[in-house]
Amino acid sequence: MSEPTNPTDAPTLAVIGGGQLARMMQQAAVGLGVPIRLLAEGPGVSAAQVVRDPLVGDYRDLATLREVAADCAVVTFDHEHVPPEHLRALDAEGHACRPGPHALLYAQDKYEMRARLTELGAPCPRWALVDDVADVEKFAAVGDGLPVVLKTTRGGYDGKGVWFVRTPEDAAEAFASGARILAEERVDFVRELSALVARSPSGQVAAYPIVESRQRDGICHEVIAPAPAIDHNLAVEAQQLAIRIASELDVVGILAVEMFETSAGVLVNELAMRPHNTGHWSIDGAITSQFENHLRAVLDLPLGDPAPRSRWSVMVNILGGTVGRLYDGYPHVMARDSRIRVHLYGKSVRPGRKVGHVTAYGDDLEDVLTRARHAAGWFAGEIEEDA
Amino acid sequence: MSEPTNPTDAPTLAVIGGGQLARMMQQAAVGLGVPIRLLAEGPGVSAAQVVRDPLVGDYRDLATLREVAADCAVVTFDHEHVPPEHLRALDAEGHACRPGPHALLYAQDKYEMRARLTELGAPCPRWALVDDVADVEKFAAVGDGLPVVLKTTRGGYDGKGVWFVRTPEDAAEAFASGARILAEERVDFVRELSALVARSPSGQVAAYPIVESRQRDGICHEVIAPAPAIDHNLAVEAQQLAIRIASELDVVGILAVEMFETSAGVLVNELAMRPHNTGHWSIDGAITSQFENHLRAVLDLPLGDPAPRSRWSVMVNILGGTVGRLYDGYPHVMARDSRIRVHLYGKSVRPGRKVGHVTAYGDDLEDVLTRARHAAGWFAGEIEEDA
Repeated sequence: MSEPTNPTDAPTLAVIGGGQLARMMQQAAVGLGVPIRLLAEGPGVSAAQVVRDPLVGDYRDLATLREVAADCAVVTFDHEHVPPEHLRALDAEGHACRPGPHALLYAQDKYEMRARLTELGAPCPRWALVDDVADVEKFAAVGDGLPVVLKTTRGGYDGKGVWFVRTPEDAAEAFASGARILAEERVDFVRELSALVARSPSGQVAAYPIVESRQRDGICHEVIAPAPAIDHNLAVEAQQLAIRIASELDVVGILAVEMFETSAGVLVNELAMRPHNTGHWSIDGAITSQFENHLRAVLDLPLGDPAPRSRWSVMVNILGGTVGRLYDGYPHVMARDSRIRVHLYGKSVRPGRKVGHVTAYGDDLEDVLTRARHAAGWFAGEIEEDA
Repeated sequence: MSEPTNPTDAPTLAVIGGGQLARMMQQAAVGLGVPIRLLAEGPGVSAAQVVRDPLVGDYRDLATLREVAADCAVVTFDHEHVPPEHLRALDAEGHACRPGPHALLYAQDKYEMRARLTELGAPCPRWALVDDVADVEKFAAVGDGLPVVLKTTRGGYDGKGVWFVRTPEDAAEAFASGARILAEERVDFVRELSALVARSPSGQVAAYPIVESRQRDGICHEVIAPAPAIDHNLAVEAQQLAIRIASELDVVGILAVEMFETSAGVLVNELAMRPHNTGHWSIDGAITSQFENHLRAVLDLPLGDPAPRSRWSVMVNILGGTVGRLYDGYPHVMARDSRIRVHLYGKSVRPGRKVGHVTAYGDDLEDVLTRARHAAGWFAGEIEEDA
């Protein structure tokens, strides 16, 4: 691959997708002196606002992908939706896709993921592919009966494409979507954990501390790093599991393994192969952020220390609420707490949309939680008080 | 002022000048969700590489300044070289220049600075305007004789426009430049200190800890935060002096006061009204970086906590050396020290040019110094060892 002409001759990295993950990659890339060539869904999307000359186009179009990858030795992603056949084509033409299509498959298709993890002996909820309501009833009958969880094998995220099935009628709704459906037992979990690792093509792995993730309406809402009062052996088990999955699946970049903590140990819930919402705390809370380590990993540079800088970090998502202009939240939030870290993504506000996050860190978990919740709640318009 | 159409309706900030300071402002602006409209000296300069649609043009041209300021309520700066009459014109047309021309004057002209600081009773080296070699000899004779320091009142930086005068012949060289010349006593200093404060139009001030700055060939090379073994009263005096100067001169944004520490206290050496090399440690070492606080100040948002996050932070500049491609230094530097923070500015390497910096932090100053010096030295090609 020829490299682009830029003053430093650093390699240019192609990034597919212009969401907030690409935006935060750009912040890290600016520091590293690595130029980013962005393929954005539209001229005004989150990352397109903050890079030079974004290419606006469709990531499902191979010619567009070729255009953005030209002069880039390495291609990486804001999301997991690029068609695998296009990734294989780019790879064959000398643009290393990281993670590669053979790995991304397991983040794109929940059936492939479950089948492979089961083969690896990784702990999963009981699961089966189901074709109709009768299959669901059969699956339920083997266990404790309904409820069970149905998921489309492809395309679901943030609670979309997931059905919590209490009655056969609920199941019918899932099949009405026409998608291929996976059934999973409903896990009686203590809490949700997330294990993030960065892995480079050379095989180096850096493991972030296990964090606790709290959902609201199926969307990650709050992350506490590290997971409070976690059993040491369980934390090590969860980190080792994530490292093993990253290695066996040949993931390059960040792998997030979302897990259920149960009384019997951990079960894998989901995989994501890109910087992940449960790792946003690392921007302010870790020595090396997940975004910088994602870039270092895909560029096959040595990884940075993922250790936390403070005893506790809490990240709370800012979800679009009743406040029209997020910027107007700054005077109150910043004056009230001069240590709070705010990240806004340049996105217009829609109810429930992730438009930013805040991070607080410190020695006292209750204090850190309270500060982060207050700031995020203020931006969302959930709190009223005299400023 | 009408605000630009952007998805969040956050105000757009105009930044004049596309050097590394503007580049690092952009990193902070991305986090805050504040769009930057950049006027760059050329299409490939440091900051122009990392913002959307930079305007390339001449900051000495009023029409160009008007073009970049259009739709921006606030204008700020990467450097202090914009002609004051243009700033007054922009101000009059409703674009708040921060800092304003009435303050910037004191960073642009060393005579004006010395006269004003003397009026304020701020401690300065003995000084006088000199017109010829005879004036210099007269100035020297009042004190301890030669050597004395001559400086052009305008346009000098990083050791340029400064003459260390040991003989009348040395002085002749300064006058040959044709510039207006200021004479200053040669200060017998213990070390150089720097006091950074951020000040908002509302008058809020945040003071960073006093740091020690070490020069090499007239260029800031190494910064230790906080200044080791500094007398507590001296540190408070230096902070209060910087706060007082910022307030009296009505500085908005970052003010850096470079000082000499002498056996009798501190003397003001230089003023800079923009983020400053002696504050780069704050990106990784402070709760709020000088770049974020500069933006918060010029946007009149409440300021962030400037306190350090670690006991010691050391920043070492990467000066252009024998290594052609800085990126090639990454494998060694990152593998040797997974905690080192590297910032490359996207600049081509020329001997002595500031092309990046590294920051190390931790509890043990000797260790932190050694790590930062090694990394910067490696990038500059000054160190050879087996990786």
